[in-house]
Amino acid sequence: MTKGVSILGSTGSIGQSTLRVLARHRDRFHVVALTALDSDGLLGEQARESGAAMARVINRTGPEGLIQAATHPDAGIVVNAVVGAAGLKATLAALHAGKRVALANKETLVMAGQLVLCAAREGGGEIVPIDSEHSAVLQCVTGRADRPALPAVPALLRRITLTASGGPFRDWPAERVRDASVEEALNHPTWRMGRKISIDSATLANKALEVIEAHHLFGLGYDDLGVIVHPQSIIHAFVEFVDGSVLSQLGFPNMELPILYALTHPERLADPGVARFDPVQAGPLTFEPVRARDFPLLTLGVEAGRKGGTAAAAFNAANEIAVEAFLMGRIRFGRIAEIVEGTLERHEITDAVTLDSVIEADRRAREDARRLCC
Amino acid sequence: MTKGVSILGSTGSIGQSTLRVLARHRDRFHVVALTALDSDGLLGEQARESGAAMARVINRTGPEGLIQAATHPDAGIVVNAVVGAAGLKATLAALHAGKRVALANKETLVMAGQLVLCAAREGGGEIVPIDSEHSAVLQCVTGRADRPALPAVPALLRRITLTASGGPFRDWPAERVRDASVEEALNHPTWRMGRKISIDSATLANKALEVIEAHHLFGLGYDDLGVIVHPQSIIHAFVEFVDGSVLSQLGFPNMELPILYALTHPERLADPGVARFDPVQAGPLTFEPVRARDFPLLTLGVEAGRKGGTAAAAFNAANEIAVEAFLMGRIRFGRIAEIVEGTLERHEITDAVTLDSVIEADRRAREDARRLCC
Repeated sequence: MTKGVSILGSTGSIGQSTLRVLARHRDRFHVVALTALDSDGLLGEQARESGAAMARVINRTGPEGLIQAATHPDAGIVVNAVVGAAGLKATLAALHAGKRVALANKETLVMAGQLVLCAAREGGGEIVPIDSEHSAVLQCVTGRADRPALPAVPALLRRITLTASGGPFRDWPAERVRDASVEEALNHPTWRMGRKISIDSATLANKALEVIEAHHLFGLGYDDLGVIVHPQSIIHAFVEFVDGSVLSQLGFPNMELPILYALTHPERLADPGVARFDPVQAGPLTFEPVRARDFPLLTLGVEAGRKGGTAAAAFNAANEIAVEAFLMGRIRFGRIAEIVEGTLERHEITDAVTLDSVIEADRRAREDARRLCC
Repeated sequence: MTKGVSILGSTGSIGQSTLRVLARHRDRFHVVALTALDSDGLLGEQARESGAAMARVINRTGPEGLIQAATHPDAGIVVNAVVGAAGLKATLAALHAGKRVALANKETLVMAGQLVLCAAREGGGEIVPIDSEHSAVLQCVTGRADRPALPAVPALLRRITLTASGGPFRDWPAERVRDASVEEALNHPTWRMGRKISIDSATLANKALEVIEAHHLFGLGYDDLGVIVHPQSIIHAFVEFVDGSVLSQLGFPNMELPILYALTHPERLADPGVARFDPVQAGPLTFEPVRARDFPLLTLGVEAGRKGGTAAAAFNAANEIAVEAFLMGRIRFGRIAEIVEGTLERHEITDAVTLDSVIEADRRAREDARRLCC
């Protein structure tokens, strides 16, 4: 018996990597359903090659297509690689249906962490992160045999430090960063990723989203979550335990490993497709503090997470709008943070995190951010 | 109820560190017995301060004093920090008596790995390594909750790479190394340790002993055990799993952490006494291949391990004699490897590893090595 896997967002970077991983492990997994925002032929090709029983073009079916793929009865695992807030309802539906959600769509947790955790508890589903940093943490607290499903609070954890490559502007002077072009911002030094997350890496907004994600997944308070710049992207996180010991997971930057691990956790599958790590080739490994003043979205996002309620959803929504405007050439790079900051200043936090309050916060923040983009 | 701990070799570097760790955790542990080779007053002082019920000076009691401390009925844990082959019988006795042996005396496993594993199985004892590299591996394969006691073969392990600081002669030209002085050889760049292990770190014989130790503890073949030079001694080992993922344990060089972990494994105790790790302060981290040709004891030792039987016991015995001769100024540094090589050439391997065959191999190798020292 092979396990059924649905992939939401199969034509994006994570989706394509997931299909490559699954193609190497057909003895363990089969593809159940695929979704893509648009159809440019790739989705049909993927469905034929993988033998998926269902394929949905979301621009035709509407959000219902995502829910159908996320709750397909043959799927035990749902890989959520949708970009942005659109992935939230699918995550909730999959968790309510008792699925494992392999989560690349971190916005899901950022917007509605408590809701998502509740859905997992109520439906018997579980969340396993695909983000390389969170996969690293999970591997460090997991060991090699049966562990309680996430979300769980590892009692012996003291601090998590996520690493950031620093993005393409790590060593640029602040005044030059403000006017960086789209092409420069997309030119990530260590990871090949989609456009939205590449910009978020350049602004460090991505690291704020990851801190909030880690808060929900691993149960640490914001004072015990740190970020450090590590330009080589080899060590993905530092996990500090109560006795002072630190564990890390390392590897060349490649999403196929965290994807495979999200499918197999807490077990592992032999996979010759992942490049073997070689410390001599990887080193030297360097670390430096984050230039928080020059990349204000990190602090803005973490503070939104700390405030709780709908603040993180507003941060995420404003950031999505501002990044979109930047990618369309309508604002300069430095405006992204200003628009998010302006939106958050206007945002009235609703403490209760319900699907309605989150969606309303998301809608209002998008409106405010759009106005600020003009 | 606190756990009773006996410390064999309490006046040495590891013994003193163990007493410092235990003094911070009197609510969990109490000291049962202490041993030292000679009495210079320190043993009595340690016994008074720790409240140990038994203290034995081995030069007075003979090996029986070690056995008494190792099998004391109140001791649940025996920290074996004896230097060299003298620790073997105490390890076996403690394991036969069902104790946890927190093992700094790696010679125990090098000389008689199979015997030691058998004693653990038969007596219901367990071995937990104190060596920082092996503690690192254990932490990476353990996770945070109940794991099977060592020795165990973690099924998902693919390769272990131990790191070596490279010692004081890492970047010396080979011809200069050969004539290095005792003072120069004792001047370890990152670790403060006893004299014997400091010399073994300078020759890399210590890393050969550690590879053999890892072979017995973690069940990997010698082809799956590697050594890499990492001058900063921050990452203690790389643990590669079948899916290509690599976990590491990191920390500033300090034996108190692995000692504490050996006492608490698989749990952890909060300990503010261990300096908190800071990647910025620790980096940059560099890695380079071992200069195996210039430090021949690494290959000699690993090959002895690979040959099996009594070969590793002979390697260890010859190395102990040669290091002693070097420390007494009777041979130059470069002769250590030559004496070990000459001894191994003469050694007729006995395949069956029994206490008798190991002791006989040890005795013959010491004789041969002594002759070669003249």
